[in-house]
Amino acid sequence: MTAVKSTNITWHKPLVTQVDRDHRNGYKGVVLWFTGLPSSGKSTLAHQVERSLFDRGCNAYVLDGDNLRHRLNKDLSFSPEDRTENIRRIGEVANLFSDAGIIVISAFISPYRNDRAQARALNDPGRFFEVYCKCSLEACEQRDPKGLYRRARKGEVKGFTGVTAPYEEPEDPEIVIETDQHSLDECVSKILSFLEEQGVMPAPPPQSP
Amino acid sequence: MTAVKSTNITWHKPLVTQVDRDHRNGYKGVVLWFTGLPSSGKSTLAHQVERSLFDRGCNAYVLDGDNLRHRLNKDLSFSPEDRTENIRRIGEVANLFSDAGIIVISAFISPYRNDRAQARALNDPGRFFEVYCKCSLEACEQRDPKGLYRRARKGEVKGFTGVTAPYEEPEDPEIVIETDQHSLDECVSKILSFLEEQGVMPAPPPQSP
Repeated sequence: MTAVKSTNITWHKPLVTQVDRDHRNGYKGVVLWFTGLPSSGKSTLAHQVERSLFDRGCNAYVLDGDNLRHRLNKDLSFSPEDRTENIRRIGEVANLFSDAGIIVISAFISPYRNDRAQARALNDPGRFFEVYCKCSLEACEQRDPKGLYRRARKGEVKGFTGVTAPYEEPEDPEIVIETDQHSLDECVSKILSFLEEQGVMPAPPPQSP
Repeated sequence: MTAVKSTNITWHKPLVTQVDRDHRNGYKGVVLWFTGLPSSGKSTLAHQVERSLFDRGCNAYVLDGDNLRHRLNKDLSFSPEDRTENIRRIGEVANLFSDAGIIVISAFISPYRNDRAQARALNDPGRFFEVYCKCSLEACEQRDPKGLYRRARKGEVKGFTGVTAPYEEPEDPEIVIETDQHSLDECVSKILSFLEEQGVMPAPPPQSP
């Protein structure tokens, strides 16, 4: 638990609510919380979903290592405590983005079940969807675009998820994407169809024949 | 300086850029960084500007004590070090929002000049505007809606900005709003006019006579 030290703070009632924003935008501000092993395809898929949603007229935004680990959370290591704090902060930022009417896509390993549950708990029901990027360890290790598995196996990277640090699989994710079984386009389509079914955004108008 | 502990991170090229977003939205993602003494009117003005921008068709979003100090930064106190870390994180979050194409309005005392300079430095030129909510200490103390000045004078609140902790006035803010000299509507208009002049958003269409 993070200790609360901020006192002397009162709440202001916002003059623009999340529902006001949804109503005008024509889609809902939600969190798509990607989780999965290193090299399971989270970041690639997240950026492609962001682009596809943008092309559908939605404001979507990716939170990933590029803009969070290098920046807001640059003070945090990969120790268990710091991983938890990393995910705590990302959960808070993701909630702010969805409150602002954006479809926010967080793409982090987020290996601990409890940390993901905390991130979920910040959001109203129907505003948070866990997307499990499921990929066998073998496939992840074969991809290994950054050579990190190789280095972890050599003992050069400590606490590497899947090798020397645990990954707790989601028990009941809203979406499972088997990134080692389907093409990138198929994975994107599955997520977009899910968002339509959930009423997060409307289906595209039918194409003229 | 915040020590950097995040390693093993590579950058992805985004498939949607800030400029793509600006172009489609018809306005620019920017940071309006409000600063001023406690009770100088920052939060009230910020929420009214957010509403006015929303009514003008822009996505604007307030970051303030309500959604930051209670949440993302609940682990931070009001010590000088924690104030700096508070503003560091807010600066990072504000930069993310402007990158996502939003007009983000941060409304924090942010008493230290150097902390504000750091927040500014995260953004490209023309993407960050410092808004000094200028109000005499006497007027702030007379307003005192939360009774905090009164408590600070009694010694019940430690390190209270303007009483027992320093406030470093901006040296060259883009906008100065004298909140003790003008009505709320006048203050809002001044900020919106500034944004039009800077090309952040278009002027409203002329009303038919």
